[in-house]
Amino acid sequence: MHTPKVVTFGEVMMRLSPPGYAMFSQAKHLDMTFGGGEANVAISLAYMGLDAAHVTRFPDNLLGKTATQFLKHHLLDTSSIVLGDEMMGLYFLEKGAVHRPSQIVYERKNSAFAKIKPGMIDWEQTLEGASWFHWTGITPAVSNGALECVSEAIDIANKHGINVSVDVHSRKNMWDYGKAAKEVMPQLIDRCDIVIGGAYDFQELFDIPLKGEHNEQFRKAAQELMKRSPRIKKVFDKEREAVSASHNRIMGRMWNGEDFYKTEKLDVTHIVDRVGTGDAYAAGVIYGLLNYEEDADALEFGAAACALKHTVEGDANMVSAEVIQDLMHGNTSGNIKR
Amino acid sequence: MHTPKVVTFGEVMMRLSPPGYAMFSQAKHLDMTFGGGEANVAISLAYMGLDAAHVTRFPDNLLGKTATQFLKHHLLDTSSIVLGDEMMGLYFLEKGAVHRPSQIVYERKNSAFAKIKPGMIDWEQTLEGASWFHWTGITPAVSNGALECVSEAIDIANKHGINVSVDVHSRKNMWDYGKAAKEVMPQLIDRCDIVIGGAYDFQELFDIPLKGEHNEQFRKAAQELMKRSPRIKKVFDKEREAVSASHNRIMGRMWNGEDFYKTEKLDVTHIVDRVGTGDAYAAGVIYGLLNYEEDADALEFGAAACALKHTVEGDANMVSAEVIQDLMHGNTSGNIKR
Amino acid sequence: MHTPKVVTFGEVMMRLSPPGYAMFSQAKHLDMTFGGGEANVAISLAYMGLDAAHVTRFPDNLLGKTATQFLKHHLLDTSSIVLGDEMMGLYFLEKGAVHRPSQIVYERKNSAFAKIKPGMIDWEQTLEGASWFHWTGITPAVSNGALECVSEAIDIANKHGINVSVDVHSRKNMWDYGKAAKEVMPQLIDRCDIVIGGAYDFQELFDIPLKGEHNEQFRKAAQELMKRSPRIKKVFDKEREAVSASHNRIMGRMWNGEDFYKTEKLDVTHIVDRVGTGDAYAAGVIYGLLNYEEDADALEFGAAACALKHTVEGDANMVSAEVIQDLMHGNTSGNIKR
Amino acid sequence: MHTPKVVTFGEVMMRLSPPGYAMFSQAKHLDMTFGGGEANVAISLAYMGLDAAHVTRFPDNLLGKTATQFLKHHLLDTSSIVLGDEMMGLYFLEKGAVHRPSQIVYERKNSAFAKIKPGMIDWEQTLEGASWFHWTGITPAVSNGALECVSEAIDIANKHGINVSVDVHSRKNMWDYGKAAKEVMPQLIDRCDIVIGGAYDFQELFDIPLKGEHNEQFRKAAQELMKRSPRIKKVFDKEREAVSASHNRIMGRMWNGEDFYKTEKLDVTHIVDRVGTGDAYAAGVIYGLLNYEEDADALEFGAAACALKHTVEGDANMVSAEVIQDLMHGNTSGNIKR
Amino acid sequence: MHTPKVVTFGEVMMRLSPPGYAMFSQAKHLDMTFGGGEANVAISLAYMGLDAAHVTRFPDNLLGKTATQFLKHHLLDTSSIVLGDEMMGLYFLEKGAVHRPSQIVYERKNSAFAKIKPGMIDWEQTLEGASWFHWTGITPAVSNGALECVSEAIDIANKHGINVSVDVHSRKNMWDYGKAAKEVMPQLIDRCDIVIGGAYDFQELFDIPLKGEHNEQFRKAAQELMKRSPRIKKVFDKEREAVSASHNRIMGRMWNGEDFYKTEKLDVTHIVDRVGTGDAYAAGVIYGLLNYEEDADALEFGAAACALKHTVEGDANMVSAEVIQDLMHGNTSGNIKR
Amino acid sequence: MHTPKVVTFGEVMMRLSPPGYAMFSQAKHLDMTFGGGEANVAISLAYMGLDAAHVTRFPDNLLGKTATQFLKHHLLDTSSIVLGDEMMGLYFLEKGAVHRPSQIVYERKNSAFAKIKPGMIDWEQTLEGASWFHWTGITPAVSNGALECVSEAIDIANKHGINVSVDVHSRKNMWDYGKAAKEVMPQLIDRCDIVIGGAYDFQELFDIPLKGEHNEQFRKAAQELMKRSPRIKKVFDKEREAVSASHNRIMGRMWNGEDFYKTEKLDVTHIVDRVGTGDAYAAGVIYGLLNYEEDADALEFGAAACALKHTVEGDANMVSAEVIQDLMHGNTSGNIKR
Repeated sequence: MHTPKVVTFGEVMMRLSPPGYAMFSQAKHLDMTFGGGEANVAISLAYMGLDAAHVTRFPDNLLGKTATQFLKHHLLDTSSIVLGDEMMGLYFLEKGAVHRPSQIVYERKNSAFAKIKPGMIDWEQTLEGASWFHWTGITPAVSNGALECVSEAIDIANKHGINVSVDVHSRKNMWDYGKAAKEVMPQLIDRCDIVIGGAYDFQELFDIPLKGEHNEQFRKAAQELMKRSPRIKKVFDKEREAVSASHNRIMGRMWNGEDFYKTEKLDVTHIVDRVGTGDAYAAGVIYGLLNYEEDADALEFGAAACALKHTVEGDANMVSAEVIQDLMHGNTSGNIKR
Repeated sequence: MHTPKVVTFGEVMMRLSPPGYAMFSQAKHLDMTFGGGEANVAISLAYMGLDAAHVTRFPDNLLGKTATQFLKHHLLDTSSIVLGDEMMGLYFLEKGAVHRPSQIVYERKNSAFAKIKPGMIDWEQTLEGASWFHWTGITPAVSNGALECVSEAIDIANKHGINVSVDVHSRKNMWDYGKAAKEVMPQLIDRCDIVIGGAYDFQELFDIPLKGEHNEQFRKAAQELMKRSPRIKKVFDKEREAVSASHNRIMGRMWNGEDFYKTEKLDVTHIVDRVGTGDAYAAGVIYGLLNYEEDADALEFGAAACALKHTVEGDANMVSAEVIQDLMHGNTSGNIKR
Repeated sequence: MHTPKVVTFGEVMMRLSPPGYAMFSQAKHLDMTFGGGEANVAISLAYMGLDAAHVTRFPDNLLGKTATQFLKHHLLDTSSIVLGDEMMGLYFLEKGAVHRPSQIVYERKNSAFAKIKPGMIDWEQTLEGASWFHWTGITPAVSNGALECVSEAIDIANKHGINVSVDVHSRKNMWDYGKAAKEVMPQLIDRCDIVIGGAYDFQELFDIPLKGEHNEQFRKAAQELMKRSPRIKKVFDKEREAVSASHNRIMGRMWNGEDFYKTEKLDVTHIVDRVGTGDAYAAGVIYGLLNYEEDADALEFGAAACALKHTVEGDANMVSAEVIQDLMHGNTSGNIKR
Repeated sequence: MHTPKVVTFGEVMMRLSPPGYAMFSQAKHLDMTFGGGEANVAISLAYMGLDAAHVTRFPDNLLGKTATQFLKHHLLDTSSIVLGDEMMGLYFLEKGAVHRPSQIVYERKNSAFAKIKPGMIDWEQTLEGASWFHWTGITPAVSNGALECVSEAIDIANKHGINVSVDVHSRKNMWDYGKAAKEVMPQLIDRCDIVIGGAYDFQELFDIPLKGEHNEQFRKAAQELMKRSPRIKKVFDKEREAVSASHNRIMGRMWNGEDFYKTEKLDVTHIVDRVGTGDAYAAGVIYGLLNYEEDADALEFGAAACALKHTVEGDANMVSAEVIQDLMHGNTSGNIKR
Repeated sequence: MHTPKVVTFGEVMMRLSPPGYAMFSQAKHLDMTFGGGEANVAISLAYMGLDAAHVTRFPDNLLGKTATQFLKHHLLDTSSIVLGDEMMGLYFLEKGAVHRPSQIVYERKNSAFAKIKPGMIDWEQTLEGASWFHWTGITPAVSNGALECVSEAIDIANKHGINVSVDVHSRKNMWDYGKAAKEVMPQLIDRCDIVIGGAYDFQELFDIPLKGEHNEQFRKAAQELMKRSPRIKKVFDKEREAVSASHNRIMGRMWNGEDFYKTEKLDVTHIVDRVGTGDAYAAGVIYGLLNYEEDADALEFGAAACALKHTVEGDANMVSAEVIQDLMHGNTSGNIKR
Repeated sequence: MHTPKVVTFGEVMMRLSPPGYAMFSQAKHLDMTFGGGEANVAISLAYMGLDAAHVTRFPDNLLGKTATQFLKHHLLDTSSIVLGDEMMGLYFLEKGAVHRPSQIVYERKNSAFAKIKPGMIDWEQTLEGASWFHWTGITPAVSNGALECVSEAIDIANKHGINVSVDVHSRKNMWDYGKAAKEVMPQLIDRCDIVIGGAYDFQELFDIPLKGEHNEQFRKAAQELMKRSPRIKKVFDKEREAVSASHNRIMGRMWNGEDFYKTEKLDVTHIVDRVGTGDAYAAGVIYGLLNYEEDADALEFGAAACALKHTVEGDANMVSAEVIQDLMHGNTSGNIKR
């Protein structure tokens, strides 16, 4: 049997955080890991058992090498990564608890990735043999070069009939290089097959009005979006109820043009690491669509993957498909496996 | 006043686990401790204030020395431990959280303990002055030699009127050396005074049928067992409700031939380490029977000890009898002791 | 705008604790930090943005230097600290979880602070420019010298119209140098403007009888206290409901001679560090009184500060005023701040 | 330009060691890494810039996955690794200093690798495109299956004209499965192109007598060996002068049938990790032979690589070819590179 | 007695390095400290007992706060530090040993400090009461703004008769903003009283030719420099003999216009941290000039301070004047002080 | 065969030190171990294979329990330890390197041990079956109670013909409770069989004049001492040449009334932990005298044990007799033992 291959593209940053719940002013050392919305998806998929390649640009120095080795360690094909310039994107994370929020500080301006230019990635070669290409709304927000590269990739993927998914992820305050999300994102999203995003995102980017309670709102917005952009086949969303920094509830929903599905709420009562849980959802949805016949199953798998990521340190989900399936089938006991 | 002495017998393994909630693929170092069902009982009892000796066989090398020193550190008499062969039993533990299960991988085949042979332990000397001998169903599952050694020990204990308790602990998939639990365990259990086990264990080993709801099931099975094996005086069981890997509820119950007792559910809402909680229950029951007149008190003490073990890192319970009594008497506040 | 300056006085001890939930018998290294009821208040206030100075006496050696540097690190003015003698006060903390209580052992007898004598601190210079002086009932319990120094300080503060607050904190078993709390504390409290304490404290120190349910009890006791000691303008109290060592609920209340206020219960479900939460409350109340017109707001700020301290490792609260205000205004979500 | 690909074959063990210079009886956690004579060579070569693949057999569980990820992290192609059985080979290392020797305890009997059988590795596919195959004398000492697999590999390599090198590494006490080194090794070495070994190895395996001082002894033994086994083209050896566990001196020498070369002594005065330094030498020699025209240069590169490994934690050398060349060209200053 | 106050100005970077001798590809966490040539001097002086203030510009975020607290912890007056922009300068250090060089990667472009502009620092206020102002050649290399700020500072210092010292520190590859060292440095150095630099620096910046062996070279160059720039009163230099990354020898020399002095070689045989040793020398020289009558003593103190820094982790020297004096007076025994 | 039993008596302190070469001002956690001159001897002997018991007094709290468990872990019989009072003796150690000295700060005044009183130890029972009793000059310096206890012990040992050894260890600045070493030590030393001390100690305590070079000085002083105190049979001394804190040279010498022996200098070039090396010497001498016929062998064993302790973290030597013998027989290579 052939294992599907998924390709993702985006910045990977070094993540530095004080151990446990220490604050920066209390720390003598920082835990180092690496993460980025799209690489997190690729790693999650690799741990589920798919072939996954991540494409990015790193500085041509010790840090770029270390970051590449991190991706190899976590099962990714790194053969399309390019090197150049000097600066590694970084983010600093101080982990919160209960009512104390986590805090993130970015140092990613002028990074090697932000300085990427069209033509630097050989997309024909990179996407050869791929079943799926995934990107997020963070990438075109980084720089004009990053935007043009993602556009190149979508074109090649479309040309070869490779599924394209996007996690819309709108972070308005990131767009500071002269373009606004609204003028760029719609034309990129138009060329996607699967969209992960919520009613607020669609309102912001497409002026689709918000109506009704949450589920209704989403269903209508998705319907409207699919009318507007006929390539889009399915729209997925998740709802997070943040009881506190240590306790969240997660629910997934989707609209496939015909049916609306939603999951039960998954109660994550002792959060270990909240970062990257949205990426775990996206990865779960992609795995689900590639492995299940029913959209409802893909959705359940995605929500379970998202819930489980909250128990894993670092940016990316590292649980196996088997553990996700257990939860998807209702086993919440967490009993020891021997 | 004379402090009672308890002797336990069984394999002690080196336990290696990534720190905190890290997964093996994320670890650079592993926390090292040692544990085994029976030694865990002995250590628990020693921290409660009893004299406790553990008997086992370790490899005659650096690791066997290190393991012995661990047991001394945790207050055990190690004078009957024997050395030989080369391999230390090991187990690798990846700690789970919420819906993510813990995972355990064993490397215990061909260990020095598995190669133990009858006659290697001088049971007359080892049990001299002892009030109690405790073993578990794991030991005869390890190897024929281990089975024969436990049988030797029970004989000597019976001969000298030393109380014998067993934690039945059936793990069917362990029995791979040619004998099945069912052909071996009944004749060993017949010679015990106190049995810790549940209705499912008794069905499996003695074909005692399951009837009614949980408490009724247990009471009937215990009654049946005591009819079949007249040496048995009391049967203890515990019920675990696994809300998640981070949150369990614990309840104890017992039948002494006349009365049935059960405890309230103890709600363990923030589990620190789930391993060895059954051993802590067994230790609590033994301490309780040696120190209280009423079986109901012994049971309450056992359940409280079990609940408290969930808050202690490592395999063995290390809280004092005083802290257990506080919880047994209903103080769940965990207020600071100065 | 002028930032108010608060001065605090009291012992600062080195705090040594096994990492995480390890017990002392399991530890190879101890986390080192420093704390003391009054310095904790000063540090909390400094992180909120006030100018804060702490006054104490340290041994004239490596440890005294290290402790002073800790206070500088955490934003305090240390220019009035004096050095002398040889012994640093210490406390050893073993952190509990769920039903397992934390345990504290002190080694503070004969410390450099306990040997402080009147005249050693130049209070005129120390309090110059200060808006507020804060002390706690722990200080006069340490030694007669400490008692006399706190009395000196209150006199100078009173003379210059500096607000004086006290956290009554009665720990009866500390008073072992020949005087009892009851013969000393009332005359010190008489000279304070703001009192933090509960009905039990006032019963113990002033023989004010306990009547009615908790809120009523407090209101009456505070009324009685203010009748007896007319300088006192406001009395604050907090109520802690200890579900377990890992889960507390916190409520504040106050009486200002005219109105009684109380806050909602703040549910702290995943405690990181319980020590110093009372000091965080005191600091929150002081900040509140200096920054809000309404006593109810000062109270809400104090309770929110107290709740947030439970999520911070170490003795002192280190969250910003902004984070406290978020919680005070009902945001319990702990959502990531980017 | 085409990067040469080197394939190595042999067991990879989990290595567990107390941090720093701690002894096992002092440790609470163990540093975890992975190593094995042949994989160490592959990793060294990968850090120097070659393509390197390692072939082995791991247990089909969490530990086998973790070990595979370690090899990926350190730049190896792991696509020919096979999984099966249950036990991971392990070794425990206590690091010495000055006059205190390091101690190693193995637990590798019955490991998944020891149970390897001929046919399990598809050598035709594994060696496709390879320029070099490297093995060591440890592998045939592990088990008959391992011996047969290495023999298979050499046959395929010989058939395709791939260079074969061996590090003779005789450890007599390993051969405990029924065959002796002397009856097995000569026929394997006969089929090699490059041999790394010393006069004592050749005396032991081929009854070549020892004559003269060290260099002479080696030259004569190498000459004799090459006469006996005409396929062998070059023989390399290294001499270690162990001043103490913290200070060694290293010298390389070689005989290519015509010329004898030796290097200056490299003085390693502050050893960080002594394990795997012989493997670093082998890797340096292979890199040297693939990249330099002169054998003397290959030898110098090998000796410099060996010396530098003493400064790297873990089993494998991780310094770049550039750093090795610096030392090879006489720069011993270790000055900071910015 | 009045303690002299020294003011320094320059960038402070977060320093991140793998623990011990680990390489980046082996690290899971990084040790965090802060350093910069000028702040290192200020911290060294503060530990020797002087008053020291450091002036810099940090980003107005969590990292800027953390860096400021680091400086407070290490005894500096931080009241003139300004905040603005978003990026913290960083450097990544991989520590070498023996022949393996340390490696440093900088991420300091576009940092808050690089974006400093004239007028941002109120130099009149900052230098009030100061006896000494110290800067290094790194600062004007960072950006034109930094150059203009240092020029401002020197002007004010000159105006008030404050001693100005410079550590020339030429790092040619840093000058990338459009100006070369040679067009900028001479006019800044002209306005200094004390210069720390070597014959190569003076050749590079002033075209002073190199003649004779090292000491002669230096003496002549210093003489020439002082002829050219009459404000300069004394020139100090140090010579480092790098036996390896673990073993250096240090010698100081100076020319005061009349006499040439040099120290014995100090043999640093077990280097703990090589970074910042030049800054320790500068600090020692400054302390020496402020505290000793004889230049030879100042020089000896500087060389001893430099040697001792090699034994201290982090960027800055933290040993007391007393320990430096011991070494200066020939006590190399390192015997325990109780 | 009967293993000789050695009993030691003296204070055991908790030792707290920053990790590696960090200074206190840089530490967030402290390594915790326990040590004391006499217990160090007992532990060293236990690791060599003798039975060893240590007697002391600990506070009756969590710290006293933890200290007792440390001694059990390291193989001691702790059955004669008594508990009482509240304070644990502590010492703080900052480890130096090269020219930077280690620093030690004690907090041992008023400790449970200092408050020991005669009669608290049952010496008859404690010394039953013992072959040897060892004490040091530190104990009578602690308090009058400690002095009286050591005197009691010597009396009982003398009565039963148990060998008594003393390590004179004069630390003049410890004697602050009203008695001077000179008025107390001679009468205690008179009752010993084996004395470890140098010519300076004997000059100080017995007014024996210093004459000649080191070896001559020692021989004459020992002769004089044995004339004065006829019970003394052998006198041992060691000479330490402190090249630096990282490099010492050790030499032993002895006089047995007839012959003078001295060892070669043992060059300890990379010190791991300097503390307790004198105690390791004493232990080595005791083991030597119990196991070798020739005094010269006992001396060689003692010197080798001393040298090896420099490579072990913590206060006590933990190397086996076998490793010491290797060094004693001239093997300085530190080659790996597999």
